[in-house]
Amino acid sequence: MARVLDSVRRLLVGRPYDTERLNRRPLGRFTALPVFSANAWSSIAYAPDEILLTLALGGTAALSLGPEIGVAVVAVMLLIVMSYRVSVRAYPEGGDYAISRANLGPWAGVTVGAAMMLDLVFTVAVSVAAMARYLAAVWPTLEGAETAVASAGVVLLAMASIRGAGRGRRAPALLALALLILLFGMIATGLVQDALGTLAPAASAAVEPVPDPAFAEGLGPLAMAVLVLRAFSSGSALATGVEVPASNVATMARPRIRTARSVMLAMGLIAAASTLGVMYLADRTSVVFVLDPASLQAEGGGPVPADYVQNPVLAQLANAILGTGSLLSGALILLVVVLLVMAGHSAFKSFPELASRLAGDGYLPRQLLTRGDRLGYTNGVVLLTLAALALVWAFQAQTALLVQLYVIGVFLSFTVSQLGMVRHWSRKLAQTPGTRGRQAVRTRRLVNLVGFVVAALVALVVLVTRFGQGAWVALLAIAAMVFVMSRIRNHYDAVASELDLTPTEDARALPSRVHAVVLVMSVQRPTLRAVAYARASRPSSLEAVVVDLDKESTQGLLTAWDRLDLPVPVTVLASPFREMSEPLIRHLRAQRRTSPRDLVVVYIPEYVVAHGWQRLLHNRTTQRLKDRLHREPGVMVASVPWRLSGVRGVTHRLPESPRGQTETGPDQ
Amino acid sequence: MARVLDSVRRLLVGRPYDTERLNRRPLGRFTALPVFSANAWSSIAYAPDEILLTLALGGTAALSLGPEIGVAVVAVMLLIVMSYRVSVRAYPEGGDYAISRANLGPWAGVTVGAAMMLDLVFTVAVSVAAMARYLAAVWPTLEGAETAVASAGVVLLAMASIRGAGRGRRAPALLALALLILLFGMIATGLVQDALGTLAPAASAAVEPVPDPAFAEGLGPLAMAVLVLRAFSSGSALATGVEVPASNVATMARPRIRTARSVMLAMGLIAAASTLGVMYLADRTSVVFVLDPASLQAEGGGPVPADYVQNPVLAQLANAILGTGSLLSGALILLVVVLLVMAGHSAFKSFPELASRLAGDGYLPRQLLTRGDRLGYTNGVVLLTLAALALVWAFQAQTALLVQLYVIGVFLSFTVSQLGMVRHWSRKLAQTPGTRGRQAVRTRRLVNLVGFVVAALVALVVLVTRFGQGAWVALLAIAAMVFVMSRIRNHYDAVASELDLTPTEDARALPSRVHAVVLVMSVQRPTLRAVAYARASRPSSLEAVVVDLDKESTQGLLTAWDRLDLPVPVTVLASPFREMSEPLIRHLRAQRRTSPRDLVVVYIPEYVVAHGWQRLLHNRTTQRLKDRLHREPGVMVASVPWRLSGVRGVTHRLPESPRGQTETGPDQ
Repeated sequence: MARVLDSVRRLLVGRPYDTERLNRRPLGRFTALPVFSANAWSSIAYAPDEILLTLALGGTAALSLGPEIGVAVVAVMLLIVMSYRVSVRAYPEGGDYAISRANLGPWAGVTVGAAMMLDLVFTVAVSVAAMARYLAAVWPTLEGAETAVASAGVVLLAMASIRGAGRGRRAPALLALALLILLFGMIATGLVQDALGTLAPAASAAVEPVPDPAFAEGLGPLAMAVLVLRAFSSGSALATGVEVPASNVATMARPRIRTARSVMLAMGLIAAASTLGVMYLADRTSVVFVLDPASLQAEGGGPVPADYVQNPVLAQLANAILGTGSLLSGALILLVVVLLVMAGHSAFKSFPELASRLAGDGYLPRQLLTRGDRLGYTNGVVLLTLAALALVWAFQAQTALLVQLYVIGVFLSFTVSQLGMVRHWSRKLAQTPGTRGRQAVRTRRLVNLVGFVVAALVALVVLVTRFGQGAWVALLAIAAMVFVMSRIRNHYDAVASELDLTPTEDARALPSRVHAVVLVMSVQRPTLRAVAYARASRPSSLEAVVVDLDKESTQGLLTAWDRLDLPVPVTVLASPFREMSEPLIRHLRAQRRTSPRDLVVVYIPEYVVAHGWQRLLHNRTTQRLKDRLHREPGVMVASVPWRLSGVRGVTHRLPESPRGQTETGPDQ
Repeated sequence: MARVLDSVRRLLVGRPYDTERLNRRPLGRFTALPVFSANAWSSIAYAPDEILLTLALGGTAALSLGPEIGVAVVAVMLLIVMSYRVSVRAYPEGGDYAISRANLGPWAGVTVGAAMMLDLVFTVAVSVAAMARYLAAVWPTLEGAETAVASAGVVLLAMASIRGAGRGRRAPALLALALLILLFGMIATGLVQDALGTLAPAASAAVEPVPDPAFAEGLGPLAMAVLVLRAFSSGSALATGVEVPASNVATMARPRIRTARSVMLAMGLIAAASTLGVMYLADRTSVVFVLDPASLQAEGGGPVPADYVQNPVLAQLANAILGTGSLLSGALILLVVVLLVMAGHSAFKSFPELASRLAGDGYLPRQLLTRGDRLGYTNGVVLLTLAALALVWAFQAQTALLVQLYVIGVFLSFTVSQLGMVRHWSRKLAQTPGTRGRQAVRTRRLVNLVGFVVAALVALVVLVTRFGQGAWVALLAIAAMVFVMSRIRNHYDAVASELDLTPTEDARALPSRVHAVVLVMSVQRPTLRAVAYARASRPSSLEAVVVDLDKESTQGLLTAWDRLDLPVPVTVLASPFREMSEPLIRHLRAQRRTSPRDLVVVYIPEYVVAHGWQRLLHNRTTQRLKDRLHREPGVMVASVPWRLSGVRGVTHRLPESPRGQTETGPDQ
């Protein structure tokens, strides 16, 4: 059974990697840009949709505000990118968690850690959900199966991560380049067509949204403001992922900080240009996008054609400009899917690293700290997979609903980390002597201050306009994570203070005497082995103990024991409730009461079976008994294994040691 | 956590019972009759329905055959009862399993054991399913929730069994008496009304079944024969449960066999009279009962009224004779529910006893052998509960479908056990000298032979007419159980022959030397305790072992270790794949290769946490490591526990020993 599981594991995961493999060549600008920008760029696949579907609540007229809101969210995104370009100067090795922890203390750190973990879960969920929608735009048969497609995406990403796949550099760079060429080619073509007047309307130009009753009676100034702010907060999803290059400076080519800064600048400008282009063209081609296609009507009223399918904005634009179903349009959409997969993959890399870092600081279970066979943090990947699947299922892979919860966590960690940077520069200022140096620090502080104010404002807008629509859930989730993480840290702290050696401790102290107790459940070979092992350890005293579960069998046991004529006295313990551990513990306690500084070793014969199913056939009393005995002070349990024959032939195969060396003994 | 679970358990299960409680006063006739007849009598709640719904396939005309088929199944039932009355003369202590095993060998025994276990599962499932239907007849709001009601019934029966409840004698007897009075009162009233011509038609008299296409074109002689045989095989469900008193002779008052025989006679006659009465009155009141109420039509064709509800036959009769919704009719129906609950309860008593017996013979896991806190066989109850719930869910609590699978197993065990009895009497005959004695044995053999022939014929009829409708599933299930049980027996046999001492074995042989290895994962107090314990056992050699999972922390470990200045050398094992057990096992094997007769004891420090959730926070590497080490020959694992502080204050409370004595030491 174990060997079957092991083979399955090898098949899925592959052969383990040596620790040496971790040291890799650093990434140059050309490769770092696409690898670390995938997360930020992928927002173009859903941020425009979010803006338009919110505006659609106000009817066709409100839709024309799209480009203006696009400008606003691009401005926010660029300001935050600028702010991070300053942050990396001070913290090339760490991301928002490290910055917040260092400058604002552990509580800020753990809050940002929680928010970032949540963000990364959302990154995966949103990416695969958007991926499912784009795939459905190419293959309409997938329409309606978005949840299944998205779930499959999560599982494939997880498997790729555990196998350590997707660590290539050239392929992502080339694919991203192809996408950028196609995307900007499409935008340029669209602009030319627009100038020539040959720009075709989008497929959705023939329909219009039924305005929401709340916004139906013309747009009053207040309703208008609410609508615009909501559209803005949805659109600010554009800024998600811009922090990724700042957390990966360590992997870039020297001079690292300069490489990172130029990567970030290029990333921001490309995202800005493409978003502006898409928003402008969506307006010019009269793209309509709504949350629920059932709320559409034909232009001027009347029902929508039965075969109308709502595609993502970018897919609609590609079809309108490059020709519906044309090769170029299909290629563009598939490259967007690739970009979304890259974004999800990058989250599958970041999340376990962050979790390992938090585990290293004692905020998460230690299991998240260690690398698996293929040098990935397997446990972290599993955790992320389960969380992302839960989100995909809970929200039925609906990008629009997911984004509403996504943005709040992102801007929360932006805000706290920028505040941390402001604090950092203020401290730095106090230590900087010269006027020129001080001026540089002041400028940096100003940039981060602007970043802080912008991020805080956006967070506030999102919180106010989206509170009822899910922002509270995200806040609650972050609070719950902070609570759990602080409890875990408390536990580890308490354990460490208990286990650490005190300077006065006598490391050489020994128990005064050792009493051996052999538990006899049958007079068979395993029991004799236990007695032999106990005798071999030459204890101060040795007794055999029989718990009287059943009069008849106990009598048979004693007779058989006497026949062996062993130099070991036997004690029978009464057990009126047919239970093993209580009479035994009672007996051990009575013994320890007379000499509390002694050690009692209980020898328990234990079967080791060949196949898992055989385990069901042997009483698991011994395991429960061992658990109980472990709770008794001064008692040690020695398991004397007896391998049942099925096993005996099988010696567990050990894999070859690749370095040829198996052990070194410096002290021997 | 453990204490919370313990409290919950005490609340649900109650305080444990002393083994002494098992010895109870024997049951007299008046109390034994209702307790052991519940199973047989409860058939009246569904057997008539089964006959009628099968006949309904042939249309209204075929329904008039009901009374005749009733007579046939009653005759079969009485013959089998007579046969069992003879069986108990020879086997007062045991049921069909013991009879078959003793006379026809282990394979027959295990087959009957499997068939009986399956029967008992079906007894529970059919009883609770019928119960749900009767409850729905009183409270129509339960209509449609039969599966939920039946599942709740299973769970409540299981809880009652585990608590050891329902062991009262007077209450069941009085309730059964009340039922019999009401039932025969109803039958008598119905017969009088029939004679006077005032018998009201049943609620279902206004509808008629749409004949099945297979039987639609008039009933040819072949179709007729098939229909009658099918109805007969469904109706033979009446005979289920008649073997129960024969398996419980040991609990009856002396003279036991005579008590049992008269209980069985009374049981059979009461079941016969009530069945005949019900079948006759159902015919006279034109009761219609079909499998699927959608296949009904109003008399003469046309749709059935929308509010028509199909109640069980007995409920329809009670309403027709005692007045729809009258107090008496409601009381009768509720007492039928009580009877069904008693039948289920009796199966919950029989199944674990049978399972314990089979476990005692090595056919089932040993866990089924032992009694729980309240002297019931808890594991058997759990097994039965799960199996019965599975049936209830799989068949959506539809009695009619369940009964089709039920009957085959019942008659299979009847047949084999009666054949065993025939064999028994033949052997007995060979040993009996006198003519009168021989004549008595011959008569008994004849009765059992008749029983065998009848049971075999019915089994054949059921198998042929119901093969496609589920009998094959039941047969397959029995075959699978026989296979599994024989595998289990083989395993236990193999283990016993391996573990049993050979006469030449030297019980006093000891390992030549003991090497102690302390696994060091941190230089903290638990590790020092492990070293101290290892030193206290004065091994031939002692070394500390560090597995090098991570260069940096290993270096720290070694420095700390050197500072302690312990007289224990340390060995560092390389682990390129960041894994603990393989380097360690490699090291131990190398050591054992030089001296294979030595014993290696590996000391592993182990944390014991206060709360279950804390367990998640500590690497479970040690458990996996211990499992691996258990598979290595000549290696013993000594777990050195360290109780983390949450536990330290809590010493596990032991319950009071009721007999005041805690231990006896005959050999000390």
